Amino acid sequence: MSSFFGRMFRISTWGESHGGAVGVVIDGCPPRMQLDLEAIQRDLDRRRPGQSKITTQRRESDEVQILSGVFEGKTLGTPILMLVQNTDARPHAYDEMRDKFRPSHADYTYMAKYGIRNWQGGGRSSARETIARVAAGAVAKQLLREWAGIEVLACVEQIHHLKAEIDPDGFTSAQVESNIVRCPVPAIAEEMVTEVDNARRRGDSVGGIVLCTARGVPAGLGDPVFDKLDATLSHACMSIPATRGIEFGSGFSSILMTGIEHNDAFEMREGRIRTRTNRSGGIQGGISNGETIYFRVAFKPTATVMVPQDTVSEAMEETVLQGRGRHDPCVLPRAVPIVEAMTALTLADHLLIGRAGGQWGR
Amino acid sequence: MSSFFGRMFRISTWGESHGGAVGVVIDGCPPRMQLDLEAIQRDLDRRRPGQSKITTQRRESDEVQILSGVFEGKTLGTPILMLVQNTDARPHAYDEMRDKFRPSHADYTYMAKYGIRNWQGGGRSSARETIARVAAGAVAKQLLREWAGIEVLACVEQIHHLKAEIDPDGFTSAQVESNIVRCPVPAIAEEMVTEVDNARRRGDSVGGIVLCTARGVPAGLGDPVFDKLDATLSHACMSIPATRGIEFGSGFSSILMTGIEHNDAFEMREGRIRTRTNRSGGIQGGISNGETIYFRVAFKPTATVMVPQDTVSEAMEETVLQGRGRHDPCVLPRAVPIVEAMTALTLADHLLIGRAGGQWGR
Amino acid sequence: MSSFFGRMFRISTWGESHGGAVGVVIDGCPPRMQLDLEAIQRDLDRRRPGQSKITTQRRESDEVQILSGVFEGKTLGTPILMLVQNTDARPHAYDEMRDKFRPSHADYTYMAKYGIRNWQGGGRSSARETIARVAAGAVAKQLLREWAGIEVLACVEQIHHLKAEIDPDGFTSAQVESNIVRCPVPAIAEEMVTEVDNARRRGDSVGGIVLCTARGVPAGLGDPVFDKLDATLSHACMSIPATRGIEFGSGFSSILMTGIEHNDAFEMREGRIRTRTNRSGGIQGGISNGETIYFRVAFKPTATVMVPQDTVSEAMEETVLQGRGRHDPCVLPRAVPIVEAMTALTLADHLLIGRAGGQWGR
Amino acid sequence: MSSFFGRMFRISTWGESHGGAVGVVIDGCPPRMQLDLEAIQRDLDRRRPGQSKITTQRRESDEVQILSGVFEGKTLGTPILMLVQNTDARPHAYDEMRDKFRPSHADYTYMAKYGIRNWQGGGRSSARETIARVAAGAVAKQLLREWAGIEVLACVEQIHHLKAEIDPDGFTSAQVESNIVRCPVPAIAEEMVTEVDNARRRGDSVGGIVLCTARGVPAGLGDPVFDKLDATLSHACMSIPATRGIEFGSGFSSILMTGIEHNDAFEMREGRIRTRTNRSGGIQGGISNGETIYFRVAFKPTATVMVPQDTVSEAMEETVLQGRGRHDPCVLPRAVPIVEAMTALTLADHLLIGRAGGQWGR
Repeated sequence: MSSFFGRMFRISTWGESHGGAVGVVIDGCPPRMQLDLEAIQRDLDRRRPGQSKITTQRRESDEVQILSGVFEGKTLGTPILMLVQNTDARPHAYDEMRDKFRPSHADYTYMAKYGIRNWQGGGRSSARETIARVAAGAVAKQLLREWAGIEVLACVEQIHHLKAEIDPDGFTSAQVESNIVRCPVPAIAEEMVTEVDNARRRGDSVGGIVLCTARGVPAGLGDPVFDKLDATLSHACMSIPATRGIEFGSGFSSILMTGIEHNDAFEMREGRIRTRTNRSGGIQGGISNGETIYFRVAFKPTATVMVPQDTVSEAMEETVLQGRGRHDPCVLPRAVPIVEAMTALTLADHLLIGRAGGQWGR
Repeated sequence: MSSFFGRMFRISTWGESHGGAVGVVIDGCPPRMQLDLEAIQRDLDRRRPGQSKITTQRRESDEVQILSGVFEGKTLGTPILMLVQNTDARPHAYDEMRDKFRPSHADYTYMAKYGIRNWQGGGRSSARETIARVAAGAVAKQLLREWAGIEVLACVEQIHHLKAEIDPDGFTSAQVESNIVRCPVPAIAEEMVTEVDNARRRGDSVGGIVLCTARGVPAGLGDPVFDKLDATLSHACMSIPATRGIEFGSGFSSILMTGIEHNDAFEMREGRIRTRTNRSGGIQGGISNGETIYFRVAFKPTATVMVPQDTVSEAMEETVLQGRGRHDPCVLPRAVPIVEAMTALTLADHLLIGRAGGQWGR
Repeated sequence: MSSFFGRMFRISTWGESHGGAVGVVIDGCPPRMQLDLEAIQRDLDRRRPGQSKITTQRRESDEVQILSGVFEGKTLGTPILMLVQNTDARPHAYDEMRDKFRPSHADYTYMAKYGIRNWQGGGRSSARETIARVAAGAVAKQLLREWAGIEVLACVEQIHHLKAEIDPDGFTSAQVESNIVRCPVPAIAEEMVTEVDNARRRGDSVGGIVLCTARGVPAGLGDPVFDKLDATLSHACMSIPATRGIEFGSGFSSILMTGIEHNDAFEMREGRIRTRTNRSGGIQGGISNGETIYFRVAFKPTATVMVPQDTVSEAMEETVLQGRGRHDPCVLPRAVPIVEAMTALTLADHLLIGRAGGQWGR
Repeated sequence: MSSFFGRMFRISTWGESHGGAVGVVIDGCPPRMQLDLEAIQRDLDRRRPGQSKITTQRRESDEVQILSGVFEGKTLGTPILMLVQNTDARPHAYDEMRDKFRPSHADYTYMAKYGIRNWQGGGRSSARETIARVAAGAVAKQLLREWAGIEVLACVEQIHHLKAEIDPDGFTSAQVESNIVRCPVPAIAEEMVTEVDNARRRGDSVGGIVLCTARGVPAGLGDPVFDKLDATLSHACMSIPATRGIEFGSGFSSILMTGIEHNDAFEMREGRIRTRTNRSGGIQGGISNGETIYFRVAFKPTATVMVPQDTVSEAMEETVLQGRGRHDPCVLPRAVPIVEAMTALTLADHLLIGRAGGQWGR
């Protein structure tokens, strides 16, 4: 188990879906920041189940409490403890999971690794642990904004076969939040809602892609050779439940170009060194180059489906699992704030590391 | 700068392309292993420039020296220092790089970050630093084999539009090494060689995909929630120069399936819990499930091309860079041992961490 | 701020004296341990204020709550969150501290470092943070006992000029707990109680020495060259508030011996390699040698005294601070479980690290 | 094995006494520092054997080579590799050590831990590994001086019963280097030389105390609650071979004072907040307070003595070890630069960490 993340802006998360609470310690948040509690709660609300007809109907209010690290509204520089109580626990809804491993979930692998598991709602492997990420990420976002003018903004780019054309520099938070699927292109967004709702009705699920951007990142963030910006962002985002892949800038499609076609020429623009195109996705040699950072994260179709599935039991007997209860037919809308959070945590860490070394910003 | 990697099987790498040497310290390699020096040199030879007509023609013998941590052929449990001297340094070949930033290279971002750079051959951002990864990875491979029966094996799956159909469980090391492009499907391999050679003649370059597998991985490796196996493998592989993306199992294509289509049913096979399909790529909830681990890493077309390119100088003036000298028209063949190395280092780390916690293998 | 400790048995602590709560996350505790809650509470009660007439009379029940990581009484291998609510907060008792720096406390240095401080009761620098250490240490003790048969036991050896002669191998937990000062030699213990009580009546304070032992430690624990057992134990114990020094085995008095006098001869005893004397304190070259580990930690006289003291204000004006309220005339009795806790945490970490590397116990 | 030290100014050391070389990687040294190679060599010369009649007569020139991280005399911000070749290897001088464990050395514990050891000259447990510490420490000293005006200076305060009275603020580097024992009080220094020389003639050895100071440290360095300045300095210094204890400021003698006697009153002096006395040793609550930091490190009498000693063999038979060859009758003179190095490395780490968090110096 490793629930620690970061070197200088470090977090330590904890909590099972049906234990007492889930939460996070932030160690390394700078002092004297006026903490915006509403912004934290707002991001938690974007992650919350039951927020619309296309997310799970579980009712969890997910109100954040802060138990340390803040005094008269300001950060102290000491560890910040944030937690959210678990309220809508219906342990009996999970009785079948006690003995049977849900396909493409973590039930079996947790058992193989630990020899014990909290089978209620997935325990530690439940997406409920991402509350801690989102709460900490909201603090990181505030740090990035105030200290470096960096904005992290993600959206849904694709659900199943429905793909929106989105310019990484050209969509706004208001557009993203204007619909329940969080796709900034209204026409496609509407189709996506229908697609997800249809999957829900069939007891099925669909996956898709989150496009994440970081705007206003100054040149110089990232720590080669192992903690390159794309490497740590990959680490961060690929630790989110249900992810399958990540690509930066031109990504996998760069393969179909030649070097001459693909290279980003440098030019002078507004007195700064800029690239004419941004196939590099704002990162070169693992270090930000001052262009908008953008990358895509693929999420598989949710593993929980409402049909009978072949599986085995803890007693190693073949059996059938009858899906029932409430589920997310598509994690994408709720994944948006989670990807933003992991991105913000990663950038905040590099920001502090860069300051330490007299490197960036000197 | 962060050239440390790993928690228990830790490495620390160092070296510029035109400094005295490049090398690595391994801290945490278990004692009493009979170190197979030839295997280390063999992997370095697979990474070496000049090994065939489709790699750069620079001549570097890249002979490894071990200066500590080994006694009478066996590891002591103390830090192992391995280094390779830099020999074929032609600093004047790089005179133009002194003042001009090469497009889609790290020259500009290193300057933006550090305010100084060794412009000779890329300095620390040169792919020459991967020698350290390959040498350390060869030791990790040996540990994985001896302690857990794990084999890491990668190959080239795609170059530009040429894609081979490869079963992650069905190719051998001999097939990979049977041709200079390291694709186990001979017919496609031949086409790939031609494709790369053509790019070379044009002064152009091409990218592609490395498919990497880890076979024989027992269920239980990986450390949620942040050091999930796919997260740390992503960190490791996305820190390799020229990478653009990574995907596990069904990857980005999972998006076009529904949950019912995509889930891997469990079944009993040969007395073990197995999945009927392996869309999960051997990892569920960030922990290995006993199936073959496989993932794909996308490499962009090499940034060094032999044509004039628009760029800017350190003095912030627009200029043209005239590519010349020797270059790799395609990094894929040499990338194979590097991806293997980073995979082995990551798995070795999880293996030791798992042993510590009384988790896996108990 | 760095409230993370340990590499494999890692903790992350948080909490101010007058915030909502203080607590700890344990990351890396092995799964399937039947957690002994009473043992945790018992150690917290030994640390608790108000436990006797010679400790501070603040009333804090310090009841521990566990919010994650435990299921049906057993550890899950996931992070364990333990917290203790803050109850007896009398912020007004600290009004004078709002503006004036208490001599030999951390008020001034926190202000110099963070530019902000929670002046109520010391905030993060309050000894109240040691609750987190003691709770986590109690879990570590259980791990050490069950996995390796190691017992950690400390006592008060000296208070001011009153020094007990104590054989590191020859005192019991019952003897330590038989009196309120936690010195296992009853005659001296009685004098110590009087000494502390006299200091309390005068509004003064006294310091002393905690002797800590770890018995049953197998040979082979410790990780040279930087994480030698004595180095990490020093780190751990010197991070406890009010410590001034630490010495192992013969310690500072070794200086008055020559090498011939000081060396511990090896001999065979009961089929094992043993040392005839134990001036090494159970550690040689930073690694346990199978003898009892023992060391001494010096605690200064408590900085809080009930007399007027010269100091300066936040406004940088010279002033006088009039001590009042409740205070600990001597931290030694309450320091015993804290030193034990930090020792247990350190040994547990080395135990897991050693298992990882196939080193100890193979 | 853990040969990594530091969080932001990180080092990784390697090397056995009779392997090819010993050395260090520094990861995190800021870029654009004009590296003073002579200063590095000068500190290595102070550590070098054979430098006077009272150190071991082994002849090792210990010339440092830098293989990476420096370009045209300046640091690049990339890892710096420094190494020293092993030259004066007389492996046969150690034949007796092949089978017999030297009392109060690490031969037995290394064998117990690793099941293998390089018995030639102590292997990794040899004091020769401190070359790496001193080389890295010399770079850290330069960083401290240039970035923060901090000077680290140590001296020998006591050898056996001979104790000099030394004001932590009142001795100079020239005084320390004016005699071969490195005690700044000439009269005592002379006696100390005689004392050590007498021990050498008898084949015996003596221990003593190094007093270390850091002057010019601004208020605000140190990272509670676990990485308090005294805690990390203890970790650093207690990892040096042959150390037995460490104490800060008033140290163990604080026990004989009461709180009223011991507290350091604050006052305004030269426009700054100062303490009237400095019993705190420049550290309060684990954070520097702007006064001179000082602490003492106790070194035991060297374990190598030239008389027959009882011991056991690897075959677990009782036997006698006949000491012979060259040895250090007292490590104190050579320990001075080593304590300075570990102190500088620790302070440099805190300096960079503090900069990261917008804490100190903001």
